[in-house]
Amino acid sequence: MKLSPLFIFSFFLLSFLISCTPNSNQNNEEQINTTQDSSNTIQNTDNQNEKIADNFGIVIHGGAGTILRENMTPEKEAEYKAKLEEAIRTGHKILAEGGSSLDAVEATIRIMEDSPLFNAAKGAVFTADEKNELDASIMNGADKAAGAIAGVTTVKNPISLARQVMENSPHVMMAGKGAEIFAKARGLELVSPDYFYTQSRFDALQKVKAKDENAVELDHDEDSTKKDQTNFYDPTIKDSKFGTVGCAALDKNGNLAAGTSTGGMTNKKYGRVGDAPIIGAGTYANNATCAVSSTGWGEFFIRNIVAYDISAMIEYKNITLAEAAKEVIQNKLPALGGNGGIIAIDKNGNVVMEFNTAGMYRASMNKDGELYIGIYEK
Amino acid sequence: MKLSPLFIFSFFLLSFLISCTPNSNQNNEEQINTTQDSSNTIQNTDNQNEKIADNFGIVIHGGAGTILRENMTPEKEAEYKAKLEEAIRTGHKILAEGGSSLDAVEATIRIMEDSPLFNAAKGAVFTADEKNELDASIMNGADKAAGAIAGVTTVKNPISLARQVMENSPHVMMAGKGAEIFAKARGLELVSPDYFYTQSRFDALQKVKAKDENAVELDHDEDSTKKDQTNFYDPTIKDSKFGTVGCAALDKNGNLAAGTSTGGMTNKKYGRVGDAPIIGAGTYANNATCAVSSTGWGEFFIRNIVAYDISAMIEYKNITLAEAAKEVIQNKLPALGGNGGIIAIDKNGNVVMEFNTAGMYRASMNKDGELYIGIYEK
Repeated sequence: MKLSPLFIFSFFLLSFLISCTPNSNQNNEEQINTTQDSSNTIQNTDNQNEKIADNFGIVIHGGAGTILRENMTPEKEAEYKAKLEEAIRTGHKILAEGGSSLDAVEATIRIMEDSPLFNAAKGAVFTADEKNELDASIMNGADKAAGAIAGVTTVKNPISLARQVMENSPHVMMAGKGAEIFAKARGLELVSPDYFYTQSRFDALQKVKAKDENAVELDHDEDSTKKDQTNFYDPTIKDSKFGTVGCAALDKNGNLAAGTSTGGMTNKKYGRVGDAPIIGAGTYANNATCAVSSTGWGEFFIRNIVAYDISAMIEYKNITLAEAAKEVIQNKLPALGGNGGIIAIDKNGNVVMEFNTAGMYRASMNKDGELYIGIYEK
Repeated sequence: MKLSPLFIFSFFLLSFLISCTPNSNQNNEEQINTTQDSSNTIQNTDNQNEKIADNFGIVIHGGAGTILRENMTPEKEAEYKAKLEEAIRTGHKILAEGGSSLDAVEATIRIMEDSPLFNAAKGAVFTADEKNELDASIMNGADKAAGAIAGVTTVKNPISLARQVMENSPHVMMAGKGAEIFAKARGLELVSPDYFYTQSRFDALQKVKAKDENAVELDHDEDSTKKDQTNFYDPTIKDSKFGTVGCAALDKNGNLAAGTSTGGMTNKKYGRVGDAPIIGAGTYANNATCAVSSTGWGEFFIRNIVAYDISAMIEYKNITLAEAAKEVIQNKLPALGGNGGIIAIDKNGNVVMEFNTAGMYRASMNKDGELYIGIYEK
């Protein structure tokens, strides 16, 4: 802490000399549609004491992975785009009417949870035990309150349970049966576990199981870590995507929020918990920096504390959201062997959708109602 | 990222001018016993390319909270100190003989798990359902591999299961029954749930329940968050400490590791998961920065991503471990209302034991075998 003034002084000294600021709007090509829309607000919002009336925005993802144009039919593609649009318009409407980013995040994610197209709630992938175990988390950037649930099997909308944990319990995270007892106590809609069943996800599990019988049998004598990891490199699993839906939003009051919901990984075993319910890995929001939701190979997102790392870089290195997201997703994550992506929005309304996979279902909408929808890398 | 060279340049320019480096050894009074021991190594290790032969160290905690001298008998105090010493000498011996920091962390934590004095494994606190639900995590600074388990009830040494998850599964985190099935598959020692029973912890639960009957009944009409939080301000709970044991170590090969194990909070409900099994909150290790284990009011440690935040500050703000730990524990955590502490060791062997509670059971030992043991603040 002691040296901060030195850094600040040296920074301003050199900034002045070469006329360069760290908040210069550096956006990569990927986000050109959305950042152009939001860049005009940056000049007005550098002064944090000034109320940023009217600026708001929302961004979502529906999972990253090997999503290839050649594997997609025009009908399927249209279906995904329509659902992404329905979801983002739901949240955008709430924001436009002056609603909170938390309300927007929850309502938007519920639309995707209710759709069998995404790996969250209805349409979740199956565990090795042929169950659907659901994880979700939500965070409020205004007070850094957070809620998360892991391994629930009867809660129709896990994101709403995560919000209940945040707002109506002293806890941040609940798991398994205990979380379901809490859901019942809070009057959330419960469903029979077969509500989450979809034929295509069940078929995907059988396909993976047939290909990888050995994944369950851990071998004491070999380096079974490496062996098991082939599980995740299996193209079948990549094709069935490692799912997750997420949303990040900025409301008119300058409050950020983020949420994430998932069925996890096909054929997951041993009560595996991925990054989606881990605050700092799958979800993070802080009004001083940004709101982030992750999707990808969860184990690497946990080890890299991906969502918080992006916020920490903005706060401590004074770089932009786009720069921080690029560093984490394109450099730090692949360095360990992980893949996936994030969507995020910063306190000024700048949106980023960064991923290192062949595709990521994604959409964003700014305060002017300009809509961006993407599936593939290009 | 773009501006890093600018920062580096400006930093060196000004460092040169005023002869000041950001790695100057600023330690707070609390750590005077241990940092003096390790400070003589700093000058030799600024060059990261140079092999730091022979330097090593270890630090542990056995929980933070309202530990007051007036509530302690000389016999009880001697018992705690003896067990802390036994634990730290176990890990120190491994390190002195050239063993890995991971081995030292696991062996040290097992000693504390096996002791009824601490809130981990044997001697864990009780849930509202009168069960002992155990959480643990471990992280390897060399490759940022990590393992964590939550809510197990039959595994004698949760820290060893966390290590098995890290080394012999493709997952980072497992919860509940699934984690126990994995433990069995890996041949770990399983015990009957009543192995963890201790009369004093059971009595503590009854005392808390009698005082706070309403904590279970959530009220839809009121701000029940606030009401429930009084649960944690209850002096009885503070007296029964919110437990957790942890260890961080640096071995002769320059590898850092950290681990944490806990029974969670007395009277916890709904499958509550605290920070101990959350990588980045309860445990973090990275050879480039430091290894950290947390103890305290878990919900706040999760929301602050405490363990990783300390590492991030060292990496991104170029401050010392002592400065980063102080900022997080004395400023950021209390700002949200949380309390507790951390123990940590950095890549140069500097040790920190920072807490904002009345006491923290703690000990450290450096490469010269110099031992520090502490309980109270002063």
